[in-house]
Amino acid sequence: MKKIALFPGSFDPFTKGHQDIVLRGSQIFDEIVIGIGKNSQKARFFSLETMIDLIKDSFQDHANVQVQAFSGLTATFAKEIGAKYLLRGLRNTTDFEYENTIAQVNRNINNLETVLLITTPELAYISSTIIRDIYRYGENVDKYLPYKLPEIK
Amino acid sequence: MKKIALFPGSFDPFTKGHQDIVLRGSQIFDEIVIGIGKNSQKARFFSLETMIDLIKDSFQDHANVQVQAFSGLTATFAKEIGAKYLLRGLRNTTDFEYENTIAQVNRNINNLETVLLITTPELAYISSTIIRDIYRYGENVDKYLPYKLPEIK
Amino acid sequence: MKKIALFPGSFDPFTKGHQDIVLRGSQIFDEIVIGIGKNSQKARFFSLETMIDLIKDSFQDHANVQVQAFSGLTATFAKEIGAKYLLRGLRNTTDFEYENTIAQVNRNINNLETVLLITTPELAYISSTIIRDIYRYGENVDKYLPYKLPEIK
Amino acid sequence: MKKIALFPGSFDPFTKGHQDIVLRGSQIFDEIVIGIGKNSQKARFFSLETMIDLIKDSFQDHANVQVQAFSGLTATFAKEIGAKYLLRGLRNTTDFEYENTIAQVNRNINNLETVLLITTPELAYISSTIIRDIYRYGENVDKYLPYKLPEIK
Amino acid sequence: MKKIALFPGSFDPFTKGHQDIVLRGSQIFDEIVIGIGKNSQKARFFSLETMIDLIKDSFQDHANVQVQAFSGLTATFAKEIGAKYLLRGLRNTTDFEYENTIAQVNRNINNLETVLLITTPELAYISSTIIRDIYRYGENVDKYLPYKLPEIK
Amino acid sequence: MKKIALFPGSFDPFTKGHQDIVLRGSQIFDEIVIGIGKNSQKARFFSLETMIDLIKDSFQDHANVQVQAFSGLTATFAKEIGAKYLLRGLRNTTDFEYENTIAQVNRNINNLETVLLITTPELAYISSTIIRDIYRYGENVDKYLPYKLPEIK
Repeated sequence: MKKIALFPGSFDPFTKGHQDIVLRGSQIFDEIVIGIGKNSQKARFFSLETMIDLIKDSFQDHANVQVQAFSGLTATFAKEIGAKYLLRGLRNTTDFEYENTIAQVNRNINNLETVLLITTPELAYISSTIIRDIYRYGENVDKYLPYKLPEIK
Repeated sequence: MKKIALFPGSFDPFTKGHQDIVLRGSQIFDEIVIGIGKNSQKARFFSLETMIDLIKDSFQDHANVQVQAFSGLTATFAKEIGAKYLLRGLRNTTDFEYENTIAQVNRNINNLETVLLITTPELAYISSTIIRDIYRYGENVDKYLPYKLPEIK
Repeated sequence: MKKIALFPGSFDPFTKGHQDIVLRGSQIFDEIVIGIGKNSQKARFFSLETMIDLIKDSFQDHANVQVQAFSGLTATFAKEIGAKYLLRGLRNTTDFEYENTIAQVNRNINNLETVLLITTPELAYISSTIIRDIYRYGENVDKYLPYKLPEIK
Repeated sequence: MKKIALFPGSFDPFTKGHQDIVLRGSQIFDEIVIGIGKNSQKARFFSLETMIDLIKDSFQDHANVQVQAFSGLTATFAKEIGAKYLLRGLRNTTDFEYENTIAQVNRNINNLETVLLITTPELAYISSTIIRDIYRYGENVDKYLPYKLPEIK
Repeated sequence: MKKIALFPGSFDPFTKGHQDIVLRGSQIFDEIVIGIGKNSQKARFFSLETMIDLIKDSFQDHANVQVQAFSGLTATFAKEIGAKYLLRGLRNTTDFEYENTIAQVNRNINNLETVLLITTPELAYISSTIIRDIYRYGENVDKYLPYKLPEIK
Repeated sequence: MKKIALFPGSFDPFTKGHQDIVLRGSQIFDEIVIGIGKNSQKARFFSLETMIDLIKDSFQDHANVQVQAFSGLTATFAKEIGAKYLLRGLRNTTDFEYENTIAQVNRNINNLETVLLITTPELAYISSTIIRDIYRYGENVDKYLPYKLPEIK
């Protein structure tokens, strides 16, 4: 049976840190599904459609990496796509405490196994929140991203 | 003199993790007052009245546990009810750093002593935030709560 | 060449904890610029003008400490004023994980060096967030501040 | 029934940080037993007998504080003296992770409840290890201790 | 190609916490090798031979779990047995900071990928060190171990 | 007056991580003294004389960096050489909690100011302990060091 892992997140935007985890995860699992969670309560900065396209382009040479949007609980979506594993990156202890909590919840709901990889040190400071801040002020953010963002007009 | 401890929180909702701390605290202190803080700046998900009733029901067999709502500072309310102790649960290091700060403030304002218990490991992943997320998507959350929530109509 | 360090923050309000870091930093660097970041996305509790005046008054006897407001990225402002160093205080591990991330970003953007001092223990519990909460409920907050706040009318 | 709490440690030496926790704990419990664990595998720096005497002197005005040496497991000794509670101080997250582990073990062995107090910030840096280092080099350590150490001859 | 993960440790003794990680890891990888590191600088409490036998017995129904002793660097042994992955459990932030460091070293030496699973909460307090302490004082430790220890004569 | 900072440690061995902190510190202070603490209670792996020579060679182009061995307390040595600042690197939260404690002690003893820099992420996993382990097993450790170690004969 194929081992499928879900890599969930809001990816607003998807960064080189995320790419690092997906590429390494794709050496562990047969298939990785990058799942972009739609959260009706929080407006996105980068549109969902744009982001899906940009991520798909980034992984066009990786046949075992897919991209999908989902709404609802992560654990529910994982079950729907046949993923028994969640893939997550750890940058620091703050991440760890958060993932620790979430991992137990997801195990509890649909018996999902959370597999953690430590982010490559050079990329550990890259967060979507910080990239949005930099981008908002008109600075170039290309070096943090595995693709080129469309111009701000 | 009776030793009264205030167990403050927003309890939106009150969880089995909270219940665990209250029950264990009630073996240390003569009386525990569960204080639900009313925060005019943050809308509740579960109504205050409903939550007070549900908590009261949960502790109906524990004569030394009471439930009250309060507005204003925790330290002020503690003094009003004659509580010299604050009771708090610790789930992880993130909680610790937060409680460390708050404990000094409360000691500083009204000379309150904060008493910490470590949450039972099996319950440490339960947080009100996560329960609201699960509930919002229509999943059953009964196993995280010491009472049965009214149906969503 | 003069060694200038920027001490950036929202300072809403500026506390004795901030003052502690600035005074100690002013023994390390030739000049400290306290930079109040204007964030168009977050309303201030204490007005920018009032806060600038209060901070200026607090440091009137320290010729090498200046106060300025800025908008945009911290790294950009640092470069504008010729600051090669960022000065920051650390209260606990939560602060550390945050500063760790931000420090790499600022190094990456404008090659800034972040210099960290550990907050004096007696002041480590003082946070602007907590002071706003206490103030909002009408409690006196003078002992947390290096100046006297104007009366609430 | 009297509520007895055991405050266990090697106390090599007993510091003002320890005293702080005992005094505050003595306001919560009816009786505090300071238990000095004898560890056959680790040689003491300050002799057990001297330390017991010095601690006893420090608490001579506190009728509800006692001092005893013990060997074997902390949980076993607690049961022997009728203590259902363990009292411990927390200085930082490193302490927290350690206490978290030990608390579960002691609960598991003899159903002991661990009650944690956060060390007063001004005393949080005081550790027995550091005091031994300072003392070894002939520096005065009186300000870290609630008693006066006998002279080194 | 078979995906082999090395689960290295001193396992003095191997606990239910270790077993938990191995069993879960065996659902991710094709083969798990439990590698007991021989450290000439640290005497073992439980003999290497006894421990190998006890662990082998525990996993006799798991064809894809093997047990081997090794000396030298973990990264070297991993390469020898064709393991491209290291499997490790995380109990808390102290573990995380340690694993973070070690993971980078092992990646650096032999390009090994470290895969982390969070220990099941109920087992997170179990450490080999604590078990040795309990055992040394003659208390029964069977409930912490996935096998029955031979009697102390 | 010249601003002198002491960078204390056992440096067994001195690593590229240490070098990183010294070089960056030498941009902040007028002079950096690398102080190798002689600890009579712990045998060195790399001899003190060898290490002093290797470090001196590494900084021969940096006139404001010196190397000295010292015994006794760090705070005492700092005073002797006229250093009012201690320079230290932070790799993670474990380091932070340790430095937090030590910084207060050194401030308390000789009013020293501890200045912290966050280690460059790519170097943060390098620790003297790990290098000794790798070296002991005959692996090459040159890439972790700012100098070439003499051959093991």
